[in-house]
Amino acid sequence: MPVTPFDSKIYRELLLDAEIAARFDEAAEIQSWLRVEAALAKTQAVLGIIPAESAAAIEKVCGKVTIDPASLAAGTGRDGIPIPAFVAALRKLMGNDELAAWVHFGATTQDVMDTGLVLRLREVCTIVEARLGLVLNALADLAEAHAELPLAARTRRQPATPTSFGAVAAAWGAPLLAQLESLSPLRARLLRASLHGASGNSSALGPRASELRKAFAAELELAPDDICWHTDRSSLAEFASWLTRICGALAKIAEDCLLGAAPEVGELKLPAGGGSSTLPHKQNPVQAETLVALFDFATALDGTLTRALLHRQQRDGAAWMLEWMALPQLCLCSGRALQISAALLTRLEPEPGRMRANLEGAHGLVYAEAISFRLADELPRPEAQAAVKRLCAEALAQDRPLVDLAAEKYPHIDWQPIADPAGQLGDAPAQAKSFAARVRNI
Amino acid sequence: MPVTPFDSKIYRELLLDAEIAARFDEAAEIQSWLRVEAALAKTQAVLGIIPAESAAAIEKVCGKVTIDPASLAAGTGRDGIPIPAFVAALRKLMGNDELAAWVHFGATTQDVMDTGLVLRLREVCTIVEARLGLVLNALADLAEAHAELPLAARTRRQPATPTSFGAVAAAWGAPLLAQLESLSPLRARLLRASLHGASGNSSALGPRASELRKAFAAELELAPDDICWHTDRSSLAEFASWLTRICGALAKIAEDCLLGAAPEVGELKLPAGGGSSTLPHKQNPVQAETLVALFDFATALDGTLTRALLHRQQRDGAAWMLEWMALPQLCLCSGRALQISAALLTRLEPEPGRMRANLEGAHGLVYAEAISFRLADELPRPEAQAAVKRLCAEALAQDRPLVDLAAEKYPHIDWQPIADPAGQLGDAPAQAKSFAARVRNI
Amino acid sequence: MPVTPFDSKIYRELLLDAEIAARFDEAAEIQSWLRVEAALAKTQAVLGIIPAESAAAIEKVCGKVTIDPASLAAGTGRDGIPIPAFVAALRKLMGNDELAAWVHFGATTQDVMDTGLVLRLREVCTIVEARLGLVLNALADLAEAHAELPLAARTRRQPATPTSFGAVAAAWGAPLLAQLESLSPLRARLLRASLHGASGNSSALGPRASELRKAFAAELELAPDDICWHTDRSSLAEFASWLTRICGALAKIAEDCLLGAAPEVGELKLPAGGGSSTLPHKQNPVQAETLVALFDFATALDGTLTRALLHRQQRDGAAWMLEWMALPQLCLCSGRALQISAALLTRLEPEPGRMRANLEGAHGLVYAEAISFRLADELPRPEAQAAVKRLCAEALAQDRPLVDLAAEKYPHIDWQPIADPAGQLGDAPAQAKSFAARVRNI
Amino acid sequence: MPVTPFDSKIYRELLLDAEIAARFDEAAEIQSWLRVEAALAKTQAVLGIIPAESAAAIEKVCGKVTIDPASLAAGTGRDGIPIPAFVAALRKLMGNDELAAWVHFGATTQDVMDTGLVLRLREVCTIVEARLGLVLNALADLAEAHAELPLAARTRRQPATPTSFGAVAAAWGAPLLAQLESLSPLRARLLRASLHGASGNSSALGPRASELRKAFAAELELAPDDICWHTDRSSLAEFASWLTRICGALAKIAEDCLLGAAPEVGELKLPAGGGSSTLPHKQNPVQAETLVALFDFATALDGTLTRALLHRQQRDGAAWMLEWMALPQLCLCSGRALQISAALLTRLEPEPGRMRANLEGAHGLVYAEAISFRLADELPRPEAQAAVKRLCAEALAQDRPLVDLAAEKYPHIDWQPIADPAGQLGDAPAQAKSFAARVRNI
Repeated sequence: MPVTPFDSKIYRELLLDAEIAARFDEAAEIQSWLRVEAALAKTQAVLGIIPAESAAAIEKVCGKVTIDPASLAAGTGRDGIPIPAFVAALRKLMGNDELAAWVHFGATTQDVMDTGLVLRLREVCTIVEARLGLVLNALADLAEAHAELPLAARTRRQPATPTSFGAVAAAWGAPLLAQLESLSPLRARLLRASLHGASGNSSALGPRASELRKAFAAELELAPDDICWHTDRSSLAEFASWLTRICGALAKIAEDCLLGAAPEVGELKLPAGGGSSTLPHKQNPVQAETLVALFDFATALDGTLTRALLHRQQRDGAAWMLEWMALPQLCLCSGRALQISAALLTRLEPEPGRMRANLEGAHGLVYAEAISFRLADELPRPEAQAAVKRLCAEALAQDRPLVDLAAEKYPHIDWQPIADPAGQLGDAPAQAKSFAARVRNI
Repeated sequence: MPVTPFDSKIYRELLLDAEIAARFDEAAEIQSWLRVEAALAKTQAVLGIIPAESAAAIEKVCGKVTIDPASLAAGTGRDGIPIPAFVAALRKLMGNDELAAWVHFGATTQDVMDTGLVLRLREVCTIVEARLGLVLNALADLAEAHAELPLAARTRRQPATPTSFGAVAAAWGAPLLAQLESLSPLRARLLRASLHGASGNSSALGPRASELRKAFAAELELAPDDICWHTDRSSLAEFASWLTRICGALAKIAEDCLLGAAPEVGELKLPAGGGSSTLPHKQNPVQAETLVALFDFATALDGTLTRALLHRQQRDGAAWMLEWMALPQLCLCSGRALQISAALLTRLEPEPGRMRANLEGAHGLVYAEAISFRLADELPRPEAQAAVKRLCAEALAQDRPLVDLAAEKYPHIDWQPIADPAGQLGDAPAQAKSFAARVRNI
Repeated sequence: MPVTPFDSKIYRELLLDAEIAARFDEAAEIQSWLRVEAALAKTQAVLGIIPAESAAAIEKVCGKVTIDPASLAAGTGRDGIPIPAFVAALRKLMGNDELAAWVHFGATTQDVMDTGLVLRLREVCTIVEARLGLVLNALADLAEAHAELPLAARTRRQPATPTSFGAVAAAWGAPLLAQLESLSPLRARLLRASLHGASGNSSALGPRASELRKAFAAELELAPDDICWHTDRSSLAEFASWLTRICGALAKIAEDCLLGAAPEVGELKLPAGGGSSTLPHKQNPVQAETLVALFDFATALDGTLTRALLHRQQRDGAAWMLEWMALPQLCLCSGRALQISAALLTRLEPEPGRMRANLEGAHGLVYAEAISFRLADELPRPEAQAAVKRLCAEALAQDRPLVDLAAEKYPHIDWQPIADPAGQLGDAPAQAKSFAARVRNI
Repeated sequence: MPVTPFDSKIYRELLLDAEIAARFDEAAEIQSWLRVEAALAKTQAVLGIIPAESAAAIEKVCGKVTIDPASLAAGTGRDGIPIPAFVAALRKLMGNDELAAWVHFGATTQDVMDTGLVLRLREVCTIVEARLGLVLNALADLAEAHAELPLAARTRRQPATPTSFGAVAAAWGAPLLAQLESLSPLRARLLRASLHGASGNSSALGPRASELRKAFAAELELAPDDICWHTDRSSLAEFASWLTRICGALAKIAEDCLLGAAPEVGELKLPAGGGSSTLPHKQNPVQAETLVALFDFATALDGTLTRALLHRQQRDGAAWMLEWMALPQLCLCSGRALQISAALLTRLEPEPGRMRANLEGAHGLVYAEAISFRLADELPRPEAQAAVKRLCAEALAQDRPLVDLAAEKYPHIDWQPIADPAGQLGDAPAQAKSFAARVRNI
């Protein structure tokens, strides 16, 4: 009974990131718990905390069983958590009460679920990192190829001065580079095992709890944590904000694409778009729109995970449930946004002719700053600026190019270099190339 | 591949409102579109806009077919909207190209999806209204039964003065009553058909568009709207905020239950709670915790729907997709919160003994205001208040009841009435009864 | 030490709504409390609850004193609430301990602050209502004047079909009309006095509490409420959402203006914009940008007030403080957004020439739907739609107008009416006029 | 006209962080711009971009003038940004048009405002870091002093097993330690100068732009950035989320304090609280409540800054203004939360007697897990767990201590060690000490 578009069969090719979803579906969730219980039993046996024979049996069963998710529904409904039912199911599947008695020894529900979650978030990090690489490479390609392609920079929705499309692509990529660079310390905070028992002090795990915790974490290739993190959800909130910043960077690209691909602007050509139920000519910019929607939704989910920081006392069922509602969806939004962005950016094409036409259009006002700086060689700067302001007004009133008016008024100046956008790019090409080089060196 | 706990087989008995979910699953969504297309064809035939034979065939097919949701996935992925693929599927199912040609005549995707959504939201309103009634009746029962049961009111986490549990229940119910009363005008704004065509001006619907729109709306028992609401999402945002206010009122009840049911307070007995994977004695207050989590998530979804108000130009794919992500989940959260609340409140039991013990505990400081008002009959009020402040400090220092100290210091006053909480309830019983009467009169 | 741009001397002409701010500044806040204490004393004297002489003295002092806000800082810092310090200051100002003793008799801090707030929110409602009227009238003027002015409707960022600018203005106004219509019942829920005492049961107000409450509310021309609303913040949350929906409707207009005023589109002329520190030609669309920012901030504040619904037990200091942080700023955002919108819309000018040029531009693809409907008179509809899809592709490939290609391929059809946008407006003019009429009839 | 409680004279001792506020008030804002213009002129002169004489004059004036914030209001209202008016005012103050002409040469408004903001955020980082140290030290003191003080851990609002108060304090501090450790890389991303000109490509700064940018950043002791960050707001969003995670950790402490200080629990003694306007005995937990409110508001502001990531094209006035509204308030919330927390935690006192009494209370059910583990030495574990579940029910039914019942049923077992909470602390003392050691080693 799918009730979100992420789960819906209708919308899945639009919105579903199947690769991320595979980490959060019911089966994957249960598999991760089995892996945790196996690692727990194995390391407990090594330390002599539980019988080796029992550990071997637990490991064996965890490695091969599947547990029907629906079989846990009643227990989860009753307990508010699935692990009591899961442990009972696992014990039953072992078919030997004596051996099964040592399943989940000394652990608490949250240990299993948090560690199981982290195992899957580790895979999400890997996926996201790889896709960030794809998106950054697509942006580096654009930056390099178009490092010197002039177009009008728009500030506050208006043409400002010429810049290059390569620099635009570099600016798009800069926040993604920053996120990629901050992944490594974030991973260190995020990817830790939890093994602290009911109240976080491992009292049921016995005197070798700290040793066990290290071995357990090592078995799962996670970091141990000597201070219990049952209530310290800050690494999850940090991860959520990191994902959301990625979504934000991608939505910014998408908005710029929507603005640049509007027929009246026509500077960007997006991959073939979506059809309409009634308009034969429509090529809706579905990818870009979806990126904007995904970011908007991600911000809400990020806020939810931030709120879940307020995790009361030694464990808080309400704050914890909130994570279940928001975190998988946030991973899905981010993953899907990266997939779509890679598809969009590898096929995005600038239209140099329209870029040039728009530079010349609107009376060439994009050259106003350059004209004022050139004029400031001859006049005091404020006067030069005021003079150009007047020329702009005249250009609009007379519907003529600004440079022509400047040439009429100040005929002794050579205006040729000003009117050539290639001469007005500043260090835009250098920014584009520097960005591409940084991406190639990741 | 369920990726939200609402859709997960594991969590469904905890979090899924199956009755609401049935309005948002894929099949229900498609059914609602079929119903819209049928109503459109039928009314268009009556007005002579499309051939009667074709309308009859369309109606017939819409009334009996099922369309596999998965068959729409590719088209939805491509177009960003499901209706082009849906219309194509419907036409194909009709098996007669000529008759099928008139399917979806002059409508646009958003007309079908918005009207289909409204048909299902109408059912959600009915369900929510009925459940609000159940919750209010449970509260009225509590208010009536315990109108005069004394307990310590807590303000800012501290005992304040005596009040009655019935008044507490009335205060819990007051915001729910307010929402129930505001449903009727909200329904009028929400439950309207959409039939405005690609750009909202019905240009493809022909000269009788307005007449058709009325007939179409009437056929679906919805209100017509002469100004196109493709971009006016305010009634959806209003509905979202209304649902969220309901969730907020229920979460407030839940928090009060969590505080009142803590073993050290012990004034409320919640229905039997959830078990732990390691603690044999646990009876976790799962219902109340879930209510708090559902409200927290609802606020995020409400914010998302508020953001979707910024629906650009004549239709905005990004803002619209955002609604798909948030609205069904918000309905689910609200519906589930009402279900859980009804279950919780019909079985909630106050513990009069503990209420009385807590009134007497903490040195009977809850009587401080009453003592100061009694004393103000003899002393200037500020002096009386200062005197009681001193008595409170003494009570704490000497670990003795405040009333005893007052009696020692002012032996000529009869302190008996003050020390009886039943005499300190003010109009708490009246509030409880007035609330119950208002609920009974709905 | 102003730390928000709303309070900053630098930003005040950009962001400050002085009229609304005057209801929330320190002096106004204190004045509202004085008014409440005066009304309380007056009505208590009438009912014989406090001495008439004292009430007269309280009323007199409340009517003329000013209390230095800074004098309440230390007390507020200590108590977390300003009323204890305020009551002490008021008593001191009365200069007669005996008479002063009856100040604030039986009330609680929240009674005074909530009622004082409501008195000021009443004025906010009046201001907002009047400004909504101004904005709606400006929109009605636009709708009427341009009911038949053709422009390209844009759906999903692309030209869709012709519509009229009047219909665009009507669609802008529709959600504002809806909010105006829902103000009256909202006012009824919002504008109520609070007089319930420390724990909400009026126990210190004596047996005539209910009678007093009615008289007190009547004195302030507010509604009484028999069930204490100390913890029922739903009317504040509802008000917040209502204000935010207004901001959303205005931000939508602003976004459409930003898109329509981009030089490459050029269909809307905004009032003269902001200058740049370095670009002489800039006319930044400051008003429209500000509207978008105000809505974005309003959504955050609205979410905060929604969260404040979770008001624990009989009074919750944390939830209440949250209202202080968010509500005044939300009123300011909304008020400022309305001011700016009125200024923007009364001077907004459509550019018919550019609208027409854009309709003809992009190969006249906006006529595609009309062509397909005309063709469907001769061909089965799906075939007609497919034929037009092919024609669109040819128009793009050959860089020629779509209608010319249609005329070549189907020379027997009279394409003249199709190529005239005035004939393609559907009921856009009627929507525009109907909207204007509804506004005129408010 | 202060309209937020942060600016209000009434509320300032409750809510205002004067030290942070001093970085965001109007004068500080203008001072930071003066410093930026001075650094710009100085480094431009060194590189021969502007005349040395002019630079000297600019530096001199910037070092001594004050500019009346109100004098910028009209210009800011017109332009939507304060820098054009600021530059004009600065030039005028220089009193020499020729020298003044080189003020702000080649820079854009956003360069000045962003760099000026970063200079002040650097001070905020220093303040926050120092206060984090104070809070962590207070927590380390508590952790050390009470490493072995037993109390009942509460999970899901119920007593779970014994733990130590030192471990509770360590868990409170863990997320704060994590934030402190992540400050250093965050600073590197945040503290960078902006000098990129109108469109981000430094075209008006001439061919030595990159060299100038490095010198300018060095002059201000900031990092340079070769890719323009006008539109890359990710470091601001990251900073916002970091601050909010701090607020979240502090609010969690506050909630735990509110729960632990409730009279019925009585395990924590908070510093003397706030008085009531009518209740003589009240000691409201104002500090803790304020912390909760500050976090709630911070989450909204954080969400706003996340939304501001969507900064369109080469500069977006709307997204930028949003930062002005939210970022100073977020710094204030965080700073104030740290101040209050330090004050609260240095004076927080555990009540060992009540902790012990609560452990024994509720029938000693907190020993259930330990009993079940002891019993599992003799019975299969599931049987042991089931047996203890039955004993718990009996304890409740007979109102007797669980350990007594266990002793009756299993008299051969020595239950003494189980009934001593000191023997049940697991590694709680070790966690407390390990946390303290980590704090001492910062």
